[in-house]
Amino acid sequence: MKLYSFSRSSAAYRVRIALALKGLSYEYASVNLPKGAQYQPEYSAINPQNLVPVLDEGNQLLYQSLAIIQYLDEVYPEPPLLPQDAFGRSRVRSLALLVACEIHPLNNPRVLNYLTGKLGISEEQKLEWYHHWVKAGFTPLEKRLADEPETGRFCHGDAPGFADCALVPQVANANRFKVDLSAFPTIVRINDECLKLEAFQKAAPQNQPDWD
Amino acid sequence: MKLYSFSRSSAAYRVRIALALKGLSYEYASVNLPKGAQYQPEYSAINPQNLVPVLDEGNQLLYQSLAIIQYLDEVYPEPPLLPQDAFGRSRVRSLALLVACEIHPLNNPRVLNYLTGKLGISEEQKLEWYHHWVKAGFTPLEKRLADEPETGRFCHGDAPGFADCALVPQVANANRFKVDLSAFPTIVRINDECLKLEAFQKAAPQNQPDWD
Repeated sequence: MKLYSFSRSSAAYRVRIALALKGLSYEYASVNLPKGAQYQPEYSAINPQNLVPVLDEGNQLLYQSLAIIQYLDEVYPEPPLLPQDAFGRSRVRSLALLVACEIHPLNNPRVLNYLTGKLGISEEQKLEWYHHWVKAGFTPLEKRLADEPETGRFCHGDAPGFADCALVPQVANANRFKVDLSAFPTIVRINDECLKLEAFQKAAPQNQPDWD
Repeated sequence: MKLYSFSRSSAAYRVRIALALKGLSYEYASVNLPKGAQYQPEYSAINPQNLVPVLDEGNQLLYQSLAIIQYLDEVYPEPPLLPQDAFGRSRVRSLALLVACEIHPLNNPRVLNYLTGKLGISEEQKLEWYHHWVKAGFTPLEKRLADEPETGRFCHGDAPGFADCALVPQVANANRFKVDLSAFPTIVRINDECLKLEAFQKAAPQNQPDWD
């Protein structure tokens, strides 16, 4: 297995967590996003979306972090990352999608570049935009995690899983952009619990071969 | 079953297609987004994200369109919307996520309102932004659908499914904003195939009780 990744890509970070939780080994193929490596023809041939991650499973290329993690959970079922019941699976998918659809797409570099480049907004306006969408997503996420009885030590019960794979990289990004997280104690608590685990440490940006 | 929906919400439209393909009947609860009904306290109590759709399954509230559709497919398995093999499931999830994570979040009303309101961009700049992200997503989507052997009459083989539930509402939105789709013949062809089916017609915005 080969993972096309970049240290600071939070979508790649999600998949690295899942691979580490499963104890799966893989070849790390670095795609240097700040240097534009994702737009080189050889990478476009691998992923026409010019994004990471991509998982090369030998015969197949797999795209989109949340689809890749579900594939891994189906093909390498131990330890399970999704619950055994349909409602539970729906719940963790909805928590992960809240991060992946409502927060992350608005704050990734190509969007921020459009705002500062083409639309000419200031650095201050860019930071305000960034913080706005993190808070707009974390506010309902906090409420759900705090209110719903399925929340445990982690997002769903007492074992780390699918939703935690999405939560931790988003918290890392929020911290990098200095978002005040004091209004989100449950998110912070779960993130702290995750970071105690070796799998999450192994997957962290600063522990990747292309960290600089 | 009760679906909180709004006619022109493309996320709700995805779930309406899945319900119609499954032949499931449901109560339609309209949430008038342009009038701000999603921010009323009674709706915030149902969905702290202030978004549609929500599926009320009697004992449980289900969030996020792609999670809801997968729940429906697991609990009401006929006809199946996801393939039987893990790679196929990963493929259709990645196609749906391409739409749901890379296009739709950038172009929904709350984002456009931030751009025109807080950032003061012009109507022309807003349209350019809209078209830009549709094309940025449709270009790799077209390439994948055109190149990958799994594509058939629909996104995956010759039966409509999960990826089509995401594709058709996004094409409807692109048409509403007059995006030129001539560079995306496979997307247009599959959309046309879908719209021949009664389930897709039944789910269309103009056939909802709150269409105006």
